[in-house]
Amino acid sequence: MKIKLVLSVLLLFACVAAFGQEKQPGKARKQKQTVVEKGLIKVSIMYPFEEGKTFDIDYYETKHMPMVAGYLGDNLVKYTIEKGMASGIPNTPLPYMAIGTFYVKDLSEYQAAIGPNIATIRADFANYTNVAPVILVSEVVR
Amino acid sequence: MKIKLVLSVLLLFACVAAFGQEKQPGKARKQKQTVVEKGLIKVSIMYPFEEGKTFDIDYYETKHMPMVAGYLGDNLVKYTIEKGMASGIPNTPLPYMAIGTFYVKDLSEYQAAIGPNIATIRADFANYTNVAPVILVSEVVR
Repeated sequence: MKIKLVLSVLLLFACVAAFGQEKQPGKARKQKQTVVEKGLIKVSIMYPFEEGKTFDIDYYETKHMPMVAGYLGDNLVKYTIEKGMASGIPNTPLPYMAIGTFYVKDLSEYQAAIGPNIATIRADFANYTNVAPVILVSEVVR
Repeated sequence: MKIKLVLSVLLLFACVAAFGQEKQPGKARKQKQTVVEKGLIKVSIMYPFEEGKTFDIDYYETKHMPMVAGYLGDNLVKYTIEKGMASGIPNTPLPYMAIGTFYVKDLSEYQAAIGPNIATIRADFANYTNVAPVILVSEVVR
């Protein structure tokens, strides 16, 4: 009788512990999610809009960006793709057709990973665009 | 005796359920976290680098961006600030000193919120920069 009672109480504590753990990692995850981008390095490849220039965003999303991301290993935290819609200033042209951004932990590691593959990366440009990109390296402040 | 045994088994199931639940919301959260930016509208205010132009990123982070964010209400999902470090193309100048970005659900709601406050927003520019920004409206593809 007593052993069963003790077992029940132990299991009850285990349950409480399990539910408790359920909340903790949730919180930790949320906190990480909020803080994670600050301090990261962004490498933004920006494709200017110009008359007569084209950009195949499907190829960019399904082939080019995954290829480059594949070179970056653990240094890559995430990458994003955005499609230019309009200038936010009335009566001015669209500044960029598209922007691809790599969020990395370390810039020199990024450069070391891209360097040996730069010819392959550049050769792939012609498969989706005929415009030369502007590239901004920046630090996430917030 | 039997009741205690049944209780123990029930508690054991409760524990398993608790640990199981611990994993499920984790997954759901992760999925939401990955998908949340896709489809959002980005309004990126980009401050070009030019000789003799200045940018006070502390004022921008602590005063200007929070002020504008305050106009946007529930439509604003998040906003980010990045500080330009370098051009990613050797021997070319830094393209932008800083970029502030609002991630919103709806562009016309954004415009309706900014419109009545545009004079106040523009008047604040002189407190942190002497360069006119480029503004890109884009859609998050990935």
